[in-house]
Amino acid sequence: MIKAGIFGTTGYTGFELAKILWRHPGVRIQFATSQSQPGRRLSDLFPAGPDLPLIHPKEASLAEIDVLFLCLPHALAAPAAIEALKEGTRVVDLSADFRLKNPGLYSQWYGHEHPAPHLLVEAVYGLSEFSREELPAARLVANPGCYPTSILLALQPVLQARAIGGTIIADSKSGVSGAGRSPRQHTHFVEVSDNFYPYKIGRAHRHLPEIEQGLSLWHDDPPPIIFSPHLLPIPRGILSTIYVPLKDNWSETDLRIHYQEAYTGEPFVRILPAGELATLAHVNHTNRCVLSLTVAANTLILTSAIDNLVKGAAGQAVQNMNLMFGIEETIGLI
Amino acid sequence: MIKAGIFGTTGYTGFELAKILWRHPGVRIQFATSQSQPGRRLSDLFPAGPDLPLIHPKEASLAEIDVLFLCLPHALAAPAAIEALKEGTRVVDLSADFRLKNPGLYSQWYGHEHPAPHLLVEAVYGLSEFSREELPAARLVANPGCYPTSILLALQPVLQARAIGGTIIADSKSGVSGAGRSPRQHTHFVEVSDNFYPYKIGRAHRHLPEIEQGLSLWHDDPPPIIFSPHLLPIPRGILSTIYVPLKDNWSETDLRIHYQEAYTGEPFVRILPAGELATLAHVNHTNRCVLSLTVAANTLILTSAIDNLVKGAAGQAVQNMNLMFGIEETIGLI
Amino acid sequence: MIKAGIFGTTGYTGFELAKILWRHPGVRIQFATSQSQPGRRLSDLFPAGPDLPLIHPKEASLAEIDVLFLCLPHALAAPAAIEALKEGTRVVDLSADFRLKNPGLYSQWYGHEHPAPHLLVEAVYGLSEFSREELPAARLVANPGCYPTSILLALQPVLQARAIGGTIIADSKSGVSGAGRSPRQHTHFVEVSDNFYPYKIGRAHRHLPEIEQGLSLWHDDPPPIIFSPHLLPIPRGILSTIYVPLKDNWSETDLRIHYQEAYTGEPFVRILPAGELATLAHVNHTNRCVLSLTVAANTLILTSAIDNLVKGAAGQAVQNMNLMFGIEETIGLI
Amino acid sequence: MIKAGIFGTTGYTGFELAKILWRHPGVRIQFATSQSQPGRRLSDLFPAGPDLPLIHPKEASLAEIDVLFLCLPHALAAPAAIEALKEGTRVVDLSADFRLKNPGLYSQWYGHEHPAPHLLVEAVYGLSEFSREELPAARLVANPGCYPTSILLALQPVLQARAIGGTIIADSKSGVSGAGRSPRQHTHFVEVSDNFYPYKIGRAHRHLPEIEQGLSLWHDDPPPIIFSPHLLPIPRGILSTIYVPLKDNWSETDLRIHYQEAYTGEPFVRILPAGELATLAHVNHTNRCVLSLTVAANTLILTSAIDNLVKGAAGQAVQNMNLMFGIEETIGLI
Repeated sequence: MIKAGIFGTTGYTGFELAKILWRHPGVRIQFATSQSQPGRRLSDLFPAGPDLPLIHPKEASLAEIDVLFLCLPHALAAPAAIEALKEGTRVVDLSADFRLKNPGLYSQWYGHEHPAPHLLVEAVYGLSEFSREELPAARLVANPGCYPTSILLALQPVLQARAIGGTIIADSKSGVSGAGRSPRQHTHFVEVSDNFYPYKIGRAHRHLPEIEQGLSLWHDDPPPIIFSPHLLPIPRGILSTIYVPLKDNWSETDLRIHYQEAYTGEPFVRILPAGELATLAHVNHTNRCVLSLTVAANTLILTSAIDNLVKGAAGQAVQNMNLMFGIEETIGLI
Repeated sequence: MIKAGIFGTTGYTGFELAKILWRHPGVRIQFATSQSQPGRRLSDLFPAGPDLPLIHPKEASLAEIDVLFLCLPHALAAPAAIEALKEGTRVVDLSADFRLKNPGLYSQWYGHEHPAPHLLVEAVYGLSEFSREELPAARLVANPGCYPTSILLALQPVLQARAIGGTIIADSKSGVSGAGRSPRQHTHFVEVSDNFYPYKIGRAHRHLPEIEQGLSLWHDDPPPIIFSPHLLPIPRGILSTIYVPLKDNWSETDLRIHYQEAYTGEPFVRILPAGELATLAHVNHTNRCVLSLTVAANTLILTSAIDNLVKGAAGQAVQNMNLMFGIEETIGLI
Repeated sequence: MIKAGIFGTTGYTGFELAKILWRHPGVRIQFATSQSQPGRRLSDLFPAGPDLPLIHPKEASLAEIDVLFLCLPHALAAPAAIEALKEGTRVVDLSADFRLKNPGLYSQWYGHEHPAPHLLVEAVYGLSEFSREELPAARLVANPGCYPTSILLALQPVLQARAIGGTIIADSKSGVSGAGRSPRQHTHFVEVSDNFYPYKIGRAHRHLPEIEQGLSLWHDDPPPIIFSPHLLPIPRGILSTIYVPLKDNWSETDLRIHYQEAYTGEPFVRILPAGELATLAHVNHTNRCVLSLTVAANTLILTSAIDNLVKGAAGQAVQNMNLMFGIEETIGLI
Repeated sequence: MIKAGIFGTTGYTGFELAKILWRHPGVRIQFATSQSQPGRRLSDLFPAGPDLPLIHPKEASLAEIDVLFLCLPHALAAPAAIEALKEGTRVVDLSADFRLKNPGLYSQWYGHEHPAPHLLVEAVYGLSEFSREELPAARLVANPGCYPTSILLALQPVLQARAIGGTIIADSKSGVSGAGRSPRQHTHFVEVSDNFYPYKIGRAHRHLPEIEQGLSLWHDDPPPIIFSPHLLPIPRGILSTIYVPLKDNWSETDLRIHYQEAYTGEPFVRILPAGELATLAHVNHTNRCVLSLTVAANTLILTSAIDNLVKGAAGQAVQNMNLMFGIEETIGLI
């Protein structure tokens, strides 16, 4: 039985994680913390959720657990990671603190110095399908962002095939839970409802450097990318429509074969047959990433769907934990 | 041309009012204020809205206008009303400050002393259909609450007919704009979406004393009432389903005749034919109140639908203004 | 391992049932039928659903299974039940065919003769919490309707306490999946969205006689009841707000004690503490019924929330199956 | 007073048109037809709509009106147009029948011979901003499709500037009313709600040839275009995010100047200031098209928002009618 702790349980990601770990047959939740509401129970905040007591992080005994999940805002996660590692506890960080290898990029995009640059080398970027070799030995895992997960899983095979002939365009649409649980004007029900809008399009969103770093894992000189997020008036789910200019006249059939090979045997990645397109109905409330391929005007159009809270956050964190501890990768996940 | 000012333009009620007045052929908006965002334009906050400059309330020249609309929180409206009246400006107050005639009730339900008890006698309760006689001479109009409007318009005829034989039950359902525009946890899109819930049911909501006062206008000893509001996961609209135990075996036909007579010629109240029920689709974005009557088990079941922001707030305020200034009651309204 | 078959898998109830049975550790789905789309797979219709082949009902081998679930329209379920019982297969019928004990009532409300009146005596009305004694021996179970489940679970304790002093009013609100999956004008997205409306209020809905029959199980002369359903613009969930006039001055505290005793140890019924009210967030995607009690104006106000597709249909069917086969009642359910 | 008739009033487009014409001070609706529901009133189907009687098209007297609006399915509109023109009545056709100049393209995309190829030359493609010269004399106007309107208005200035250096990508998202009012599985509330999906992406949607024809109006050899529509879980609105590879290092500032000049004085087209992006909240329930410009990675990213039922259909039809009859272009429109 893996003993787990959760830091930051009352956001959407922390709650989703608590729900998954609660039903996971190989895990015991040793504690779940809340800075703002210690003493309450998780089911007070999420009435259908597990009836877990929330303790103040200062009361959490890091030495007693095998793994600590950090669902904290960036800059707060890194110090907690340092403390846990000191106690010999492994860490899965769901914040952005250890995703970017380059601390300069981090400070440029997040507006402050990196709080623990010495840990960046060892942190494993936990896009599970591509980090299975490093996870078993990892002490510290940087769980990927939601948009990067949907985009990188879609692009890896075509990048690896060296089939890209120009600027990639990722037009992504996300449900509102991606904006966090703190109430703000732009997440008020009346503002979101019946509306739809783009934000930070082009090359302005913090997930851009993470996506670019991901691409560079598989290509020394990856093509440029434009990334345009939009807000959907629904609670959850990300669908990215990605446009990849092709070189060398790759056909849809050849690309499909390539994708099928790349993801053969993957429990959570599914390539749809020709003529079908990814939808949020394929993936919401599951850890799946569903991909489709369409070629038109010498461009590969990928549609990639994930649940931002599951494969885009808590589900992938548990998938990574399963891999870290050498148990079946799919346990506790749908 | 009526010269109008608006205090508190950036909430949902203030914005709806600005939209209606902007298109009203007999009104010129002289100023629109915002405490928090002076210097911006209303269309910055509501992109499809009128392009009005927002000024700080201190810069508003009350003497220059004919009528001031107060879309302020309770306790803040009364002082502004006092100031306007001093300048000879008539006031339509959309807050709760002048609705309850009894200052003791006010302090009991709103938690503080009434800020201007001396004005309570003169304030006209502006349920337009029943205050046409007092409005032309009114200096100060208390615009009714949204729930009370939907319930009182439905109950007046059966109350006047002395047909009620027991406790009235008003089960009301409101869209989220009724909760105001300030972002709070319970108005976060993700919390509201796919959810539905009751709140302050029984005899616990602040609109209860206003409803009871309304009933007592038409009956010396009105029957007891239970009022149960619920939150609908939609932006706007109120539907109240009201259960009235009947005495003396009133039939649906007789009640219907009574209702039709009561509301003959009313431009904004519509009694549906037998077999039809009120829906939000009947009323949203209009100043209408649509009513249906059904009798079952010796109980009159009324359904009453209004748009909470129009007939339940800004629309009725304009209807009241039209009546105050002696112009056609329906001008500027749909 | 219980071998189960499903008739009528492509409606919302059939699909929900397939999802629950698919994950149920004690069940093997032997077949799942579809009259209209045999040869396809369930995941073609519900992309996140189980990858089950759909066969034509004529190809289903009834003798091979232990239990047959009928998710068919009324009038079609009864003949299928007859056939299954002939083969010695037990039946859980999710249609209305065996709910009403009185075939005259059935033909009055459903517009045709009862297709199998000889089976009505033996059919067990499967409101699980109140049929545990009969279920182990039952050959044929009539799974309750969604509205009746939410209302009867709420009313049983106060009825049994003989505390009711007048007409009960059940004001219920349901998500759209309760209207079935066949596309019709009134379930078109644009018609439902941003709307809310009552339908068949008073004593006009087919679930009324089922509710009255349920009440008569616990009271020789049950009080009259008014039942008013409404359509919520969300996919799932029922919340019933129920008004019960009290006699003998029952207090909220005494009623609460009574309810807590009535449901002590019940895995799927929860009485909320004083001051809390039921919401759909308490129950959606679970088999729970959550109840609250409030007393005002000598009236007990109950709020009762269930997921119409789970406790109101497929979940309760599985709960009943667990009880029929003598396995743990909660297996496979949340 | 322009005397207008409407053919096909009970779809979403026909209803929106009836609403606009009903309030238009210069128009009298002479008749409104419905093939399926003659004898009913429009307000029976759309309870907040105008109380217009619906007649059978056979009873419509075409000679009595000045203009006939066709809100019929393709193939049915053309014969009605022929008849009206015979009577000397001018026609605004909101179907696809007269949009494509090439009857071969029409039969390729619509699956049948063109029903009136002899009228194609004279039909004016009514993208109002670019057909003001032809509209006053036009007998027959082909009202543009909703997606083409959003895309062509966005692209005209950059196309005219000869600034495009590669394949254009239009990633469009539309509300459900664009799918029509006939109930079908994929417009069922439960299927759409909480979902989001692409359809007919690449070069597969019927609006593609119309978009390409539009581009060729302003460029002899227009660049290739990819067009990917998606379905938003909301009733109305289209937002197109359009990616235009630039040549010659056009800057955002230069492009912005170019756009502002192109649309100077246009009452219904608005170019947002730098840093702002188009949203549906800018345009829904108005006849506006709101555009934003962002340059990143040598690509112009346009966001273009319209209400699909107003500027994308009925509103533009009225704008065209105003221009045809020489009255103020903005009358009756917001």
